[in-house]
Amino acid sequence: MTSAPAPPSERTTVRRAPDRARYERETIRSILDEGLVAHVGFLAGDSPIVIPMAYARVGERLYLHGSPASRMLRALDRGVPLCATVTLLDGLVLARSAFHHSMNYRSVVVMGTATEVSDTAEKARAFDAIVEQIVPGRSGNTRPANEFELRFTRLMALPIDEESAKLREGPPVDDPEDMSHPTWAGVIPLRLTAGKPIPDEACRGRVEAPGHATRYRRPLAPAD
Amino acid sequence: MTSAPAPPSERTTVRRAPDRARYERETIRSILDEGLVAHVGFLAGDSPIVIPMAYARVGERLYLHGSPASRMLRALDRGVPLCATVTLLDGLVLARSAFHHSMNYRSVVVMGTATEVSDTAEKARAFDAIVEQIVPGRSGNTRPANEFELRFTRLMALPIDEESAKLREGPPVDDPEDMSHPTWAGVIPLRLTAGKPIPDEACRGRVEAPGHATRYRRPLAPAD
Repeated sequence: MTSAPAPPSERTTVRRAPDRARYERETIRSILDEGLVAHVGFLAGDSPIVIPMAYARVGERLYLHGSPASRMLRALDRGVPLCATVTLLDGLVLARSAFHHSMNYRSVVVMGTATEVSDTAEKARAFDAIVEQIVPGRSGNTRPANEFELRFTRLMALPIDEESAKLREGPPVDDPEDMSHPTWAGVIPLRLTAGKPIPDEACRGRVEAPGHATRYRRPLAPAD
Repeated sequence: MTSAPAPPSERTTVRRAPDRARYERETIRSILDEGLVAHVGFLAGDSPIVIPMAYARVGERLYLHGSPASRMLRALDRGVPLCATVTLLDGLVLARSAFHHSMNYRSVVVMGTATEVSDTAEKARAFDAIVEQIVPGRSGNTRPANEFELRFTRLMALPIDEESAKLREGPPVDDPEDMSHPTWAGVIPLRLTAGKPIPDEACRGRVEAPGHATRYRRPLAPAD
């Protein structure tokens, strides 16, 4: 399935290395769906500040949740200008020249105005989606959020309508005159890998770890 | 070795979950030294934007390099207000209640005014440091940056004098009344792991992969 590229806005048009820019919706969705943490930038007074936050993509919006949200939520009546960036690191690119060292990565930048979610039914769905974003298959097994938790936990929604992706893949690219340099060149692939689940003290020997913990992997298996 | 906690500024004082705040210099350095990517926030017009960038910590400053630098470097005569955030993800925290799901992580936020580095000797050292930050032991093996590369590659320096760390570690913390819920609870540990190095086509069978590629690990081994 393919979709038409979303027209990049002036702000999200990638100005440098435009060959690395990708605007296709499927690419952007797959990066957002694989990520675990968004780095969210906002203004604190006159200064930019960037905070890591848990998130979920639901359709064409990101739900953002994290304890520092209170700071940015103060001004939420009129919405808050935000930038949420998700980066997946795929490898280290070792070139013959120091200058051409690089990284293989996939990243998405979403810019827009976030608003607070106040409807508790939407909040309940969004918190489930955040748990599912992090551990697919998990949300059905937990004690759902209660009325008190839903009411007093703040949550933001950021529409995905001004977004761009950027990525690098493949081997190093050296200048022709450096190709005879005797240094090894290539890529060290990187992956986020899960270790053996560590049971909570009260579960040890009593509750077996479920498949969503023992078989955890990123990116998700195609069957997930 | 211990050092006195740096006094947090008003802006970098962690307002939420203050028990997770760490201001000790050694903690901050160890997080910055383990990281590979900084998420750098700055203002593009009135809007915050967050871009992933390679960096190095050298003493009490961060050097920041990345292709989108050109956008923020335009205004560099007077320096640019920046926030550089480095996050290391250590695990997924699966609680009995949806609400208490969390992540184990270590992050550092550095806020300040970045200035352009124009001295080519300093730039040469900084680019070596960026290569070393990413692959320790690598910079001595490469063709060093030449005069042209040094002159036309922009680089920023951000003093680390307004910084804070935040981290979470350990098992899930559920409400007492949820402890009898039958769901498994615990932590899925996460690590960034390196795969087998992929040699560049021209190296295949000709140049052996060096130890800094075949034994690559994050965090660095104590001997590194």
